[in-house]
Amino acid sequence: MLLGRVAGTLVASRKEESLEGLKFLVVRQLGTDGKETGGFVIANDAVGAGVGEVVLYASGSSARQTEVTRDRPCDAVVMAIVDTWEVEGEEVYRKE
Amino acid sequence: MLLGRVAGTLVASRKEESLEGLKFLVVRQLGTDGKETGGFVIANDAVGAGVGEVVLYASGSSARQTEVTRDRPCDAVVMAIVDTWEVEGEEVYRKE
Amino acid sequence: MLLGRVAGTLVASRKEESLEGLKFLVVRQLGTDGKETGGFVIANDAVGAGVGEVVLYASGSSARQTEVTRDRPCDAVVMAIVDTWEVEGEEVYRKE
Amino acid sequence: MLLGRVAGTLVASRKEESLEGLKFLVVRQLGTDGKETGGFVIANDAVGAGVGEVVLYASGSSARQTEVTRDRPCDAVVMAIVDTWEVEGEEVYRKE
Amino acid sequence: MLLGRVAGTLVASRKEESLEGLKFLVVRQLGTDGKETGGFVIANDAVGAGVGEVVLYASGSSARQTEVTRDRPCDAVVMAIVDTWEVEGEEVYRKE
Repeated sequence: MLLGRVAGTLVASRKEESLEGLKFLVVRQLGTDGKETGGFVIANDAVGAGVGEVVLYASGSSARQTEVTRDRPCDAVVMAIVDTWEVEGEEVYRKE
Repeated sequence: MLLGRVAGTLVASRKEESLEGLKFLVVRQLGTDGKETGGFVIANDAVGAGVGEVVLYASGSSARQTEVTRDRPCDAVVMAIVDTWEVEGEEVYRKE
Repeated sequence: MLLGRVAGTLVASRKEESLEGLKFLVVRQLGTDGKETGGFVIANDAVGAGVGEVVLYASGSSARQTEVTRDRPCDAVVMAIVDTWEVEGEEVYRKE
Repeated sequence: MLLGRVAGTLVASRKEESLEGLKFLVVRQLGTDGKETGGFVIANDAVGAGVGEVVLYASGSSARQTEVTRDRPCDAVVMAIVDTWEVEGEEVYRKE
Repeated sequence: MLLGRVAGTLVASRKEESLEGLKFLVVRQLGTDGKETGGFVIANDAVGAGVGEVVLYASGSSARQTEVTRDRPCDAVVMAIVDTWEVEGEEVYRKE
Protein backbone atom coordinates (compact mmCIF):
# COMPACT_ATOMS: atom_id res chain seq x y z
CA MET A 1 0.00 0.00 0.00
CA LEU A 2 1.05 3.59 -0.40
CA LEU A 3 0.35 6.69 1.64
CA GLY A 4 -1.80 9.45 0.17
CA ARG A 5 -3.80 12.54 0.90
CA VAL A 6 -7.22 13.02 -0.66
CA ALA A 7 -6.77 16.23 -2.64
CA GLY A 8 -10.01 16.33 -4.57
CA THR A 9 -12.82 14.51 -6.35
CA LEU A 10 -13.65 13.54 -9.93
CA VAL A 11 -17.00 13.09 -11.65
CA ALA A 12 -17.57 10.83 -14.66
CA SER A 13 -21.16 10.25 -15.69
CA ARG A 14 -20.37 8.10 -18.73
CA LYS A 15 -18.58 5.00 -17.48
CA GLU A 16 -18.57 1.20 -17.39
CA GLU A 17 -21.94 0.34 -15.87
CA SER A 18 -20.52 -1.60 -12.91
CA LEU A 19 -18.87 1.60 -11.65
CA GLU A 20 -22.24 3.29 -11.08
CA GLY A 21 -22.36 4.80 -7.59
CA LEU A 22 -18.63 4.62 -6.84
CA LYS A 23 -16.82 7.75 -5.75
CA PHE A 24 -13.60 8.79 -7.48
CA LEU A 25 -10.94 10.55 -5.40
CA VAL A 26 -7.86 12.47 -6.54
CA VAL A 27 -5.18 11.10 -4.20
CA ARG A 28 -1.75 12.69 -3.94
CA GLN A 29 0.99 10.27 -2.89
CA LEU A 30 2.89 10.98 0.35
CA GLY A 31 6.35 9.87 1.47
CA THR A 32 7.13 8.39 4.89
CA ASP A 33 7.89 11.97 5.99
CA GLY A 34 4.28 12.93 5.22
CA LYS A 35 5.27 15.21 2.33
CA GLU A 36 3.89 14.93 -1.19
CA THR A 37 6.08 12.99 -3.62
CA GLY A 38 4.57 14.45 -6.79
CA GLY A 39 2.79 11.22 -7.74
CA PHE A 40 -0.98 10.77 -7.72
CA VAL A 41 -3.70 8.32 -8.57
CA ILE A 42 -7.46 8.43 -9.13
CA ALA A 43 -8.84 5.91 -6.63
CA ASN A 44 -12.25 4.61 -5.71
CA ASP A 45 -13.30 5.05 -2.11
CA ALA A 46 -14.12 2.05 0.12
CA VAL A 47 -14.06 3.80 3.50
CA GLY A 48 -15.81 7.16 3.16
CA ALA A 49 -12.64 9.25 3.00
CA GLY A 50 -13.09 13.02 2.69
CA VAL A 51 -10.96 15.67 1.03
CA GLY A 52 -7.91 16.43 3.17
CA GLU A 53 -7.74 13.04 4.87
CA VAL A 54 -4.54 10.99 4.95
CA VAL A 55 -5.20 7.49 3.65
CA LEU A 56 -3.75 4.21 2.48
CA TYR A 57 -4.52 3.00 -1.02
CA ALA A 58 -4.02 -0.39 -2.65
CA SER A 59 -3.29 -0.87 -6.35
CA GLY A 60 -3.74 -3.53 -9.00
CA SER A 61 -5.95 -6.57 -8.49
CA SER A 62 -5.85 -5.96 -4.73
CA ALA A 63 -7.88 -2.81 -5.36
CA ARG A 64 -10.80 -5.09 -6.28
CA GLN A 65 -10.84 -6.87 -2.91
CA THR A 66 -13.28 -4.48 -1.23
CA GLU A 67 -17.05 -4.75 -1.12
CA VAL A 68 -17.59 -1.76 -3.42
CA THR A 69 -14.88 -2.54 -6.00
CA ARG A 70 -15.18 -6.32 -6.45
CA ASP A 71 -15.22 -7.40 -10.13
CA ARG A 72 -15.10 -3.78 -11.28
CA PRO A 73 -12.53 -2.09 -13.59
CA CYS A 74 -10.86 -0.38 -10.63
CA ASP A 75 -7.07 -0.53 -10.15
CA ALA A 76 -6.73 1.74 -7.08
CA VAL A 77 -8.81 1.95 -3.93
CA VAL A 78 -8.64 3.89 -0.67
CA MET A 79 -9.01 1.04 1.85
CA ALA A 80 -8.01 2.77 5.11
CA ILE A 81 -7.88 6.16 6.79
CA VAL A 82 -4.61 6.63 8.65
CA ASP A 83 -4.63 7.48 12.37
CA THR A 84 -0.88 7.65 12.89
CA TRP A 85 2.45 6.24 11.78
CA GLU A 86 5.93 6.29 13.20
CA VAL A 87 9.35 5.80 11.67
CA GLU A 88 12.56 5.04 13.59
CA GLY A 89 10.63 5.51 16.83
CA GLU A 90 9.40 9.02 15.97
CA GLU A 91 5.76 9.81 15.31
CA VAL A 92 5.52 11.34 11.85
CA TYR A 93 1.77 11.86 11.59
CA ARG A 94 -1.26 11.79 13.87
CA LYS A 95 -4.80 12.49 12.70
CA GLU A 96 -6.25 15.48 14.47
CA MET B 1 -6.85 4.80 -12.41
CA LEU B 2 -4.98 7.47 -14.32
CA LEU B 3 -6.11 10.50 -16.27
CA GLY B 4 -5.64 10.60 -20.03
CA ARG B 5 -6.63 12.31 -23.24
CA VAL B 6 -7.48 10.25 -26.30
CA ALA B 7 -4.89 11.45 -28.82
CA GLY B 8 -5.47 8.98 -31.62
CA THR B 9 -6.36 5.50 -32.80
CA LEU B 10 -4.50 2.35 -33.80
CA VAL B 11 -5.42 -0.40 -36.24
CA ALA B 12 -4.13 -3.97 -36.02
CA SER B 13 -5.76 -6.51 -38.31
CA ARG B 14 -3.57 -9.46 -37.27
CA LYS B 15 -4.19 -10.07 -33.59
CA GLU B 16 -5.23 -12.60 -30.96
CA GLU B 17 -8.67 -13.72 -32.11
CA SER B 18 -10.47 -12.67 -28.91
CA LEU B 19 -9.56 -9.03 -29.62
CA GLU B 20 -11.64 -8.97 -32.81
CA GLY B 21 -13.90 -5.90 -32.82
CA LEU B 22 -12.18 -4.01 -30.01
CA LYS B 23 -11.06 -0.45 -30.61
CA PHE B 24 -7.50 0.59 -29.75
CA LEU B 25 -6.93 4.15 -28.56
CA VAL B 26 -3.67 6.10 -28.18
CA VAL B 27 -4.08 7.70 -24.75
CA ARG B 28 -1.72 10.38 -23.48
CA GLN B 29 -1.44 10.52 -19.70
CA LEU B 30 -2.47 13.75 -17.92
CA GLY B 31 -1.42 15.11 -14.54
CA THR B 32 -3.85 16.48 -11.93
CA ASP B 33 -3.25 19.88 -13.53
CA GLY B 34 -4.68 18.56 -16.81
CA LYS B 35 -1.34 18.82 -18.61
CA GLU B 36 0.33 15.95 -20.44
CA THR B 37 2.97 14.09 -18.43
CA GLY B 38 4.75 12.56 -21.43
CA GLY B 39 3.50 9.06 -20.69
CA PHE B 40 1.04 7.15 -22.85
CA VAL B 41 -0.66 3.82 -23.26
CA ILE B 42 -2.56 1.99 -25.98
CA ALA B 43 -5.91 1.16 -24.37
CA ASN B 44 -9.05 -0.63 -25.44
CA ASP B 45 -12.26 1.37 -25.29
CA ALA B 46 -15.18 0.32 -23.11
CA VAL B 47 -17.21 3.53 -23.20
CA GLY B 48 -17.16 4.87 -26.77
CA ALA B 49 -14.52 7.56 -26.15
CA GLY B 50 -13.60 9.75 -29.09
CA VAL B 51 -10.38 11.49 -30.05
CA GLY B 52 -9.84 14.56 -27.88
CA GLU B 53 -11.89 13.34 -24.92
CA VAL B 54 -10.49 13.34 -21.38
CA VAL B 55 -10.84 9.91 -19.83
CA LEU B 56 -9.93 7.57 -17.00
CA TYR B 57 -8.13 4.34 -17.78
CA ALA B 58 -7.50 1.27 -15.65
CA SER B 59 -4.43 -0.95 -16.00
CA GLY B 60 -3.45 -4.54 -15.32
CA SER B 61 -5.98 -7.25 -14.53
CA SER B 62 -8.54 -4.55 -13.70
CA ALA B 63 -8.52 -3.63 -17.39
CA ARG B 64 -10.24 -6.97 -18.04
CA GLN B 65 -13.23 -6.19 -15.80
CA THR B 66 -15.36 -4.59 -18.51
CA GLU B 67 -17.86 -6.31 -20.77
CA VAL B 68 -15.73 -5.86 -23.89
CA THR B 69 -12.35 -6.79 -22.39
CA ARG B 70 -13.18 -9.77 -20.13
CA ASP B 71 -10.75 -12.72 -20.58
CA ARG B 72 -8.89 -10.89 -23.33
CA PRO B 73 -5.15 -10.02 -23.52
CA CYS B 74 -5.85 -6.38 -22.66
CA ASP B 75 -3.88 -4.59 -19.92
CA ALA B 76 -5.35 -1.07 -20.28
CA VAL B 77 -8.93 0.08 -20.80
CA VAL B 78 -10.71 3.41 -21.00
CA MET B 79 -13.55 2.82 -18.51
CA ALA B 80 -14.89 6.36 -17.99
CA ILE B 81 -15.17 9.73 -19.71
CA VAL B 82 -14.39 12.55 -17.29
CA ASP B 83 -16.93 15.34 -16.72
CA THR B 84 -14.94 17.35 -14.20
CA TRP B 85 -12.40 17.13 -11.40
CA GLU B 86 -11.28 19.50 -8.69
CA VAL B 87 -8.14 19.68 -6.58
CA GLU B 88 -7.77 21.67 -3.33
CA GLY B 89 -11.22 23.12 -3.91
CA GLU B 90 -10.46 24.48 -7.40
CA GLU B 91 -12.04 23.08 -10.53
CA VAL B 92 -9.22 21.96 -12.83
CA TYR B 93 -11.24 20.58 -15.73
CA ARG B 94 -14.82 20.61 -16.98
CA LYS B 95 -15.98 18.88 -20.14
CA GLU B 96 -17.40 21.38 -22.61
CA MET C 1 -0.68 -2.20 -24.13
CA LEU C 2 2.58 -0.72 -25.31
CA LEU C 3 4.10 -0.29 -28.76
CA GLY C 4 7.18 -2.27 -29.69
CA ARG C 5 9.38 -3.44 -32.52
CA VAL C 6 10.59 -7.03 -32.64
CA ALA C 7 14.37 -6.61 -32.54
CA GLY C 8 15.46 -10.21 -32.12
CA THR C 9 14.87 -13.65 -30.69
CA LEU C 10 15.95 -15.61 -27.62
CA VAL C 11 16.47 -19.34 -27.12
CA ALA C 12 16.17 -21.09 -23.77
CA SER C 13 16.20 -24.90 -23.82
CA ARG C 14 16.03 -25.35 -20.03
CA LYS C 15 12.76 -23.83 -18.87
CA GLU C 16 9.51 -24.44 -17.00
CA GLU C 17 7.93 -27.34 -18.88
CA SER C 18 4.72 -25.49 -19.78
CA LEU C 19 6.75 -23.03 -21.89
CA GLU C 20 7.83 -25.78 -24.30
CA GLY C 21 7.23 -24.66 -27.88
CA LEU C 22 6.72 -20.96 -27.16
CA LYS C 23 8.79 -18.41 -29.04
CA PHE C 24 10.63 -15.68 -27.13
CA LEU C 25 11.02 -12.28 -28.81
CA VAL C 26 13.28 -9.37 -27.88
CA VAL C 27 10.89 -6.40 -28.17
CA ARG C 28 12.13 -2.82 -28.05
CA GLN C 29 9.54 -0.35 -26.77
CA LEU C 30 8.42 2.47 -29.09
CA GLY C 31 6.94 5.87 -28.28
CA THR C 32 3.86 7.32 -29.98
CA ASP C 33 6.28 8.95 -32.43
CA GLY C 34 7.48 5.49 -33.50
CA LYS C 35 10.95 6.00 -32.04
CA GLU C 36 12.60 3.66 -29.54
CA THR C 37 12.28 4.72 -25.91
CA GLY C 38 15.19 2.63 -24.62
CA GLY C 39 12.97 0.14 -22.81
CA PHE C 40 12.54 -3.48 -23.82
CA VAL C 41 10.91 -6.71 -22.79
CA ILE C 42 11.26 -10.39 -23.64
CA ALA C 43 7.78 -11.42 -24.78
CA ASN C 44 6.16 -14.61 -25.97
CA ASP C 45 4.59 -14.51 -29.40
CA ALA C 46 0.86 -15.17 -29.92
CA VAL C 47 0.52 -13.88 -33.49
CA GLY C 48 3.53 -15.07 -35.50
CA ALA C 49 5.40 -11.75 -35.39
CA GLY C 50 8.74 -11.63 -37.20
CA VAL C 51 11.89 -9.63 -36.56
CA GLY C 52 11.40 -6.02 -37.64
CA GLU C 53 7.63 -5.95 -37.21
CA VAL C 54 5.89 -3.26 -35.18
CA VAL C 55 3.64 -4.83 -32.58
CA LEU C 56 1.50 -4.36 -29.49
CA TYR C 57 2.36 -6.26 -26.34
CA ALA C 58 0.37 -6.82 -23.17
CA SER C 59 1.97 -7.24 -19.74
CA GLY C 60 1.15 -8.87 -16.42
CA SER C 61 -1.71 -11.33 -15.99
CA SER C 62 -3.22 -10.07 -19.26
CA ALA C 63 -0.25 -11.64 -21.04
CA ARG C 64 -1.70 -15.03 -20.10
CA GLN C 65 -4.99 -14.43 -21.89
CA THR C 66 -3.92 -15.86 -25.24
CA GLU C 67 -4.25 -19.43 -26.41
CA VAL C 68 -0.50 -20.09 -26.29
CA THR C 69 0.26 -18.40 -22.96
CA ARG C 70 -2.69 -19.44 -20.76
CA ASP C 71 -1.61 -20.68 -17.29
CA ARG C 72 2.05 -20.28 -18.17
CA PRO C 73 4.72 -18.21 -16.36
CA CYS C 74 4.61 -15.52 -19.05
CA ASP C 75 4.27 -11.82 -18.13
CA ALA C 76 4.53 -10.27 -21.62
CA VAL C 77 3.00 -11.31 -24.93
CA VAL C 78 2.89 -9.91 -28.43
CA MET C 79 -0.88 -10.02 -29.10
CA ALA C 80 -1.17 -7.87 -32.25
CA ILE C 81 0.80 -6.71 -35.27
CA VAL C 82 0.23 -3.01 -35.93
CA ASP C 83 -1.06 -1.85 -39.33
CA THR C 84 -1.15 1.87 -38.60
CA TRP C 85 -1.70 4.46 -35.90
CA GLU C 86 -2.38 8.16 -35.92
CA VAL C 87 -1.94 10.88 -33.33
CA GLU C 88 -3.58 14.32 -33.41
CA GLY C 89 -4.95 13.51 -36.88
CA GLU C 90 -1.54 12.69 -38.37
CA GLU C 91 -0.57 9.19 -39.45
CA VAL C 92 2.60 8.25 -37.55
CA TYR C 93 3.13 4.73 -38.84
CA ARG C 94 1.83 2.50 -41.60
CA LYS C 95 3.00 -1.07 -42.18
CA GLU C 96 4.57 -1.44 -45.60
CA MET D 1 10.41 -10.00 -4.04
CA LEU D 2 12.31 -7.02 -2.79
CA LEU D 3 14.54 -6.46 0.23
CA GLY D 4 13.40 -4.14 3.00
CA ARG D 5 13.96 -3.06 6.55
CA VAL D 6 11.01 -2.55 8.86
CA ALA D 7 11.34 1.12 9.82
CA GLY D 8 8.08 1.65 11.67
CA THR D 9 4.41 0.91 12.09
CA LEU D 10 1.12 2.47 11.01
CA VAL D 11 -2.29 2.47 12.68
CA ALA D 12 -5.58 2.83 10.80
CA SER D 13 -8.74 2.20 12.80
CA ARG D 14 -11.18 3.03 9.96
CA LYS D 15 -10.55 0.53 7.20
CA GLU D 16 -12.09 -2.11 4.95
CA GLU D 17 -13.55 -4.63 7.39
CA SER D 18 -11.53 -7.60 6.11
CA LEU D 19 -8.32 -5.86 7.21
CA GLU D 20 -9.32 -5.97 10.88
CA GLY D 21 -6.47 -7.37 12.96
CA LEU D 22 -3.72 -7.02 10.33
CA LYS D 23 -0.55 -5.16 11.21
CA PHE D 24 0.75 -2.42 8.90
CA LEU D 25 4.53 -1.96 8.64
CA VAL D 26 6.49 0.93 7.15
CA VAL D 27 9.13 -0.90 5.09
CA ARG D 28 12.10 0.90 3.58
CA GLN D 29 13.47 -0.76 0.46
CA LEU D 30 17.09 -2.00 0.50
CA GLY D 31 19.51 -2.62 -2.37
CA THR D 32 21.62 -5.76 -2.75
CA ASP D 33 24.32 -3.87 -0.83
CA GLY D 34 21.98 -3.64 2.16
CA LYS D 35 21.66 0.15 1.88
CA GLU D 36 18.37 2.00 1.62
CA THR D 37 17.31 2.91 -1.91
CA GLY D 38 14.88 5.68 -0.92
CA GLY D 39 11.81 3.66 -1.84
CA PHE D 40 9.28 2.37 0.67
CA VAL D 41 5.99 0.57 0.97
CA ILE D 42 3.34 0.05 3.63
CA ALA D 43 3.06 -3.74 3.94
CA ASN D 44 0.98 -6.14 5.97
CA ASP D 45 2.89 -8.58 8.13
CA ALA D 46 2.58 -12.35 7.65
CA VAL D 47 5.58 -13.47 9.73
CA GLY D 48 5.69 -11.40 12.93
CA ALA D 49 8.45 -9.04 11.76
CA GLY D 50 9.55 -6.36 14.24
CA VAL D 51 10.91 -2.88 13.73
CA GLY D 52 14.55 -3.03 12.61
CA GLU D 53 14.35 -6.45 11.00
CA VAL D 54 15.50 -7.07 7.43
CA VAL D 55 12.76 -8.73 5.43
CA LEU D 56 11.49 -9.80 2.03
CA TYR D 57 8.20 -8.43 0.77
CA ALA D 58 6.00 -9.51 -2.13
CA SER D 59 3.83 -7.10 -4.12
CA GLY D 60 0.67 -7.24 -6.20
CA SER D 61 -1.67 -10.23 -6.22
CA SER D 62 1.13 -12.36 -4.75
CA ALA D 63 0.79 -10.31 -1.56
CA ARG D 64 -2.60 -11.98 -1.07
CA GLN D 65 -1.14 -15.51 -1.03
CA THR D 66 -0.55 -15.68 2.73
CA GLU D 67 -2.94 -16.92 5.39
CA VAL D 68 -3.51 -13.45 6.84
CA THR D 69 -3.86 -11.51 3.57
CA ARG D 70 -5.94 -13.85 1.40
CA ASP D 71 -8.85 -12.08 -0.38
CA ARG D 72 -8.01 -8.79 1.32
CA PRO D 73 -7.21 -5.41 -0.31
CA CYS D 74 -3.50 -5.82 0.41
CA ASP D 75 -0.88 -5.25 -2.32
CA ALA D 76 2.30 -5.74 -0.25
CA VAL D 77 3.18 -8.29 2.42
CA VAL D 78 6.24 -9.13 4.46
CA MET D 79 6.48 -12.91 3.83
CA ALA D 80 9.98 -13.70 5.14
CA ILE D 81 12.59 -12.49 7.59
CA VAL D 82 16.05 -12.59 6.04
CA ASP D 83 18.85 -14.56 7.74
CA THR D 84 21.60 -13.83 5.25
CA TRP D 85 22.34 -13.15 1.59
CA GLU D 86 25.46 -13.18 -0.50
CA VAL D 87 26.36 -11.57 -3.81
CA GLU D 88 29.30 -12.57 -6.03
CA GLY D 89 30.48 -14.98 -3.31
CA GLU D 90 30.60 -12.32 -0.57
CA GLU D 91 28.24 -12.29 2.38
CA VAL D 92 26.45 -8.92 2.38
CA TYR D 93 24.18 -9.38 5.40
CA ARG D 94 23.77 -11.77 8.31
CA LYS D 95 21.08 -11.42 10.95
CA GLU D 96 22.62 -10.94 14.39
CA MET E 1 9.98 -11.35 -18.97
CA LEU E 2 13.26 -9.67 -18.20
CA LEU E 3 16.87 -10.78 -18.57
CA GLY E 4 18.95 -11.38 -15.45
CA ARG E 5 22.12 -12.92 -14.10
CA VAL E 6 22.02 -14.94 -10.90
CA ALA E 7 24.40 -12.99 -8.66
CA GLY E 8 23.82 -14.74 -5.34
CA THR E 9 21.51 -16.49 -2.95
CA LEU E 10 19.41 -15.56 0.07
CA VAL E 11 18.39 -17.58 3.12
CA ALA E 12 15.27 -16.89 5.18
CA SER E 13 14.35 -19.51 7.75
CA ARG E 14 11.33 -17.64 9.15
CA LYS E 15 8.82 -17.29 6.33
CA GLU E 16 5.27 -17.97 5.20
CA GLU E 17 4.92 -21.73 5.54
CA SER E 18 4.06 -22.36 1.88
CA LEU E 19 7.52 -21.09 0.88
CA GLU E 20 9.27 -23.93 2.71
CA GLY E 21 11.83 -25.57 0.43
CA LEU E 22 11.94 -22.82 -2.22
CA LYS E 23 15.28 -21.33 -3.19
CA PHE E 24 15.72 -17.54 -3.24
CA LEU E 25 18.09 -16.06 -5.83
CA VAL E 26 19.55 -12.57 -6.04
CA VAL E 27 19.06 -11.72 -9.73
CA ARG E 28 20.67 -8.69 -11.32
CA GLN E 29 18.76 -7.32 -14.31
CA LEU E 30 20.51 -7.25 -17.70
CA GLY E 31 19.86 -5.09 -20.76
CA THR E 32 19.60 -6.42 -24.31
CA ASP E 33 23.35 -5.74 -24.57
CA GLY E 34 23.96 -8.24 -21.77
CA LYS E 35 25.17 -5.54 -19.36
CA GLU E 36 23.75 -4.96 -15.90
CA THR E 37 21.15 -2.20 -15.69
CA GLY E 38 21.46 -1.62 -11.94
CA GLY E 39 18.09 -3.18 -11.14
CA PHE E 40 17.63 -6.44 -9.26
CA VAL E 41 15.01 -8.72 -7.81
CA ILE E 42 14.90 -11.58 -5.33
CA ALA E 43 13.32 -14.44 -7.29
CA ASN E 44 12.37 -18.01 -6.55
CA ASP E 45 13.94 -20.66 -8.73
CA ALA E 46 11.85 -22.98 -10.90
CA VAL E 47 14.61 -24.37 -13.13
CA GLY E 48 17.65 -25.12 -10.97
CA ALA E 49 19.60 -22.00 -11.96
CA GLY E 50 23.04 -21.58 -10.41
CA VAL E 51 25.04 -18.50 -9.49
CA GLY E 52 26.48 -16.89 -12.62
CA GLU E 53 23.84 -18.17 -15.01
CA VAL E 54 21.97 -15.87 -17.37
CA VAL E 55 18.23 -16.35 -16.97
CA LEU E 56 14.74 -15.09 -17.73
CA TYR E 57 12.45 -14.15 -14.87
CA ALA E 58 8.72 -13.48 -14.80
CA SER E 59 7.07 -11.04 -12.39
CA GLY E 60 3.69 -10.53 -10.78
CA SER E 61 0.96 -13.17 -10.85
CA SER E 62 2.76 -14.90 -13.73
CA ALA E 63 5.52 -15.77 -11.25
CA ARG E 64 3.04 -18.12 -9.60
CA GLN E 65 2.47 -20.19 -12.76
CA THR E 66 5.25 -22.70 -12.11
CA GLU E 67 4.98 -25.99 -10.24
CA VAL E 68 7.05 -24.76 -7.29
CA THR E 69 5.51 -21.30 -6.91
CA ARG E 70 1.78 -21.96 -7.46
CA ASP E 71 -0.44 -20.29 -4.81
CA ARG E 72 2.59 -18.99 -2.94
CA PRO E 73 3.45 -15.35 -2.03
CA CYS E 74 6.05 -15.18 -4.80
CA ASP E 75 6.11 -12.24 -7.24
CA ALA E 76 9.26 -13.14 -9.24
CA VAL E 77 10.48 -16.48 -10.57
CA VAL E 78 13.38 -17.66 -12.70
CA MET E 79 11.51 -19.73 -15.29
CA ALA E 80 14.22 -20.26 -17.97
CA ILE E 81 17.97 -20.43 -18.39
CA VAL E 82 19.05 -18.54 -21.51
CA ASP E 83 21.07 -20.31 -24.21
CA THR E 84 21.45 -17.39 -26.59
CA TRP E 85 19.78 -14.23 -27.88
CA GLU E 86 20.34 -12.02 -30.87
CA VAL E 87 19.38 -8.43 -31.63
CA GLU E 88 19.32 -6.83 -35.09
CA GLY E 89 20.83 -10.03 -36.51
CA GLU E 90 23.83 -10.04 -34.16
CA GLU E 91 24.33 -12.66 -31.47
CA VAL E 92 24.65 -10.83 -28.15
CA TYR E 93 25.03 -13.77 -25.79
CA ARG E 94 25.68 -17.50 -25.98
CA LYS E 95 25.90 -19.77 -22.97
CA GLU E 96 29.32 -21.42 -22.75
